[in-house]
Amino acid sequence: MLQSELKLRRDKIRALMAQQEIDAAIITCNVNLVYTCGRVVSGYFYLPLQQPARLFVKRPNDLKGEFVAPIRKPEQLPDLLEEQGLPLPKRLMLEGDELPFREYNRLAACFPGSEVLPCGTELIRRARSVKTEMEVEVFRRSAAAHARAYAQIPSVYRPGMTDRQLSVEIERLMRQEGCLGIFRVFGRSMEIFMGSVLAGDNAAAPSPYDFALGGEGIDPSLPGGANGTTLQAGQSVMVDLGGNFFGYMCDMSRVYSIGRLPQKAYDAHQACLEAQAEVTALARPGITCEALYNKAVEVVAKAGFADNFMGIGQKAKFVGHGIGLEINEAPVLAPRIRQELEPGMVFALEPKIVLPGVGPVGIENSWAVTADGVEKLTVAPEEIIEL
Amino acid sequence: MLQSELKLRRDKIRALMAQQEIDAAIITCNVNLVYTCGRVVSGYFYLPLQQPARLFVKRPNDLKGEFVAPIRKPEQLPDLLEEQGLPLPKRLMLEGDELPFREYNRLAACFPGSEVLPCGTELIRRARSVKTEMEVEVFRRSAAAHARAYAQIPSVYRPGMTDRQLSVEIERLMRQEGCLGIFRVFGRSMEIFMGSVLAGDNAAAPSPYDFALGGEGIDPSLPGGANGTTLQAGQSVMVDLGGNFFGYMCDMSRVYSIGRLPQKAYDAHQACLEAQAEVTALARPGITCEALYNKAVEVVAKAGFADNFMGIGQKAKFVGHGIGLEINEAPVLAPRIRQELEPGMVFALEPKIVLPGVGPVGIENSWAVTADGVEKLTVAPEEIIEL
Repeated sequence: MLQSELKLRRDKIRALMAQQEIDAAIITCNVNLVYTCGRVVSGYFYLPLQQPARLFVKRPNDLKGEFVAPIRKPEQLPDLLEEQGLPLPKRLMLEGDELPFREYNRLAACFPGSEVLPCGTELIRRARSVKTEMEVEVFRRSAAAHARAYAQIPSVYRPGMTDRQLSVEIERLMRQEGCLGIFRVFGRSMEIFMGSVLAGDNAAAPSPYDFALGGEGIDPSLPGGANGTTLQAGQSVMVDLGGNFFGYMCDMSRVYSIGRLPQKAYDAHQACLEAQAEVTALARPGITCEALYNKAVEVVAKAGFADNFMGIGQKAKFVGHGIGLEINEAPVLAPRIRQELEPGMVFALEPKIVLPGVGPVGIENSWAVTADGVEKLTVAPEEIIEL
Repeated sequence: MLQSELKLRRDKIRALMAQQEIDAAIITCNVNLVYTCGRVVSGYFYLPLQQPARLFVKRPNDLKGEFVAPIRKPEQLPDLLEEQGLPLPKRLMLEGDELPFREYNRLAACFPGSEVLPCGTELIRRARSVKTEMEVEVFRRSAAAHARAYAQIPSVYRPGMTDRQLSVEIERLMRQEGCLGIFRVFGRSMEIFMGSVLAGDNAAAPSPYDFALGGEGIDPSLPGGANGTTLQAGQSVMVDLGGNFFGYMCDMSRVYSIGRLPQKAYDAHQACLEAQAEVTALARPGITCEALYNKAVEVVAKAGFADNFMGIGQKAKFVGHGIGLEINEAPVLAPRIRQELEPGMVFALEPKIVLPGVGPVGIENSWAVTADGVEKLTVAPEEIIEL
């Protein structure tokens, strides 16, 4: 990756560090290394406020560069910094919401003379929430590949398939278009394989995970997504796979039907499209997340679908979420979130309705916030497509 | 899952807790919840030494049971325990190698009168390392499904394919046989999508991850596995996908060739098969992990392949590893590991050799330790199969 791009990202983190008088960060979690160094390594990225950054690498053993040095264990860090002519930090930040408790403590203990702060995750996620031009461009390329894969979905459907069989074929389309497959989520408790394909009443199954819709899954060790439902006439199917083609998690849902659906399903789908239209007409720098959430609820309620919005028995309490190297970044479009949109933020907006006896309808696209509005990244037909 | 099976697992953890005079554990990480409760929930499993366990659940909201109660946040735990007639713990263990630093501290702060110990991960992993009869049976079923998928690999190969295209087709075979797809690894730094398909010299590419062989990958955000190499005559291809069919990570590698390989490749492959035969002839309760590792090195060195064993420029420092709900459990078959095998342990043994200009050869099977030896779980042809 371009050094100028990495410098831009590092300086965004540094600006936030300066506000809290933090004079160095140690970054060692994979997504934050991808953000600041352009790749995953096993090692420690040392980011001082004033001096050039250093990358201390355990593995791979063939990485070279002016500011790259080998390391075996974190206890070497103070000596290695001294060798590089860097002072030990006064206030050092670590990734306190990502590093496991014991690993955090081991790393902190290497710097007994420093004040060690756990705000690294929070602050780096704040920097990551506003994308650079290059990051938005990567999202555009991801969205195009994502749309190419979805365009082929009707060609892999066969009557009599289960939701799971259809999911496997769509996963293959995604992989063929270049999807890396891996689905990165912030936080230890959410897990998913590539995304979900939800048909019929399975879309209402309450989930342990905080995704928009759940699904029962086929094994209690991963209770989410397709559950083996045989696809039948009158059912809707929502495809919601993560589009990680170059590290960034593009997000996009489309709805398919087996034959025709009851009219109510088309009405509900239309309500979601209207919610999307009205929310994105409002979306621009300065508007609050809660205002966008409230607008979506208002549109859907006016159409008479409030009870079925974002699930039935267990509802998701958001209508959109930031996306980036992880599927759940800032901002979150949810009640009581006063955070304002900023140019460069990228988010998924996913108004969805679940109808008992039919299944899920609605829409999800990825959007980039521009200087005066939003740009739709995932451009593809939005009507319900009959399979 | 059978309550008697869950009781058995919980009592194994309790026995280890008793040795350290720990009177309660809070378990909240997904794999440990699968182990102790048979499924993923979002919530807290409270395991006292003496009383019946309680499950406090945030999500899903439809989970019922005599010992299940709803919860919104960890700060409610002391009051909820009191409601259930349970005393607050004197010595409480948490999952210190899995919970993020801040989340650990938040949970610990709910119990100001308790001594809070971070040894939960270590101790639960020790319990998990010795499988129950039912867990070994799940591994047998996984291994059979895994072998069924691999048996179809020759049918999806097409001349001119890249390693990545072949990988996508094999992933589909695995999913069609019921693979859940998700690849669970212990530790925050290792990531992989389903496994790896390594062809030719890509098998020697040094990786940031501590898997047996690396591979460059196709994007620096996930530098592992297939790198887009076009499969060509004279190349070997190693397929090493994780076989997670019912929550347990079965592990199995097989080697394929494009046309015939140089004789040296067959010799090296044979050396790995001999290493497997000699190691598993020794393997039984009471033998140390290092003795098994040393035997593998001895056999391969005698055949003249020491320099190419487990990689070239960057070598893996193990020849096998425990498997279970995660791909990297105890025991590890590595130098200086004095841990002894016990009946019920399940491990993958993977002697592998990388030959420049040809690619990877060798074998990997999953094995269960019995009363007096080992049982091969992944039964399938072990010769190099020409595609």
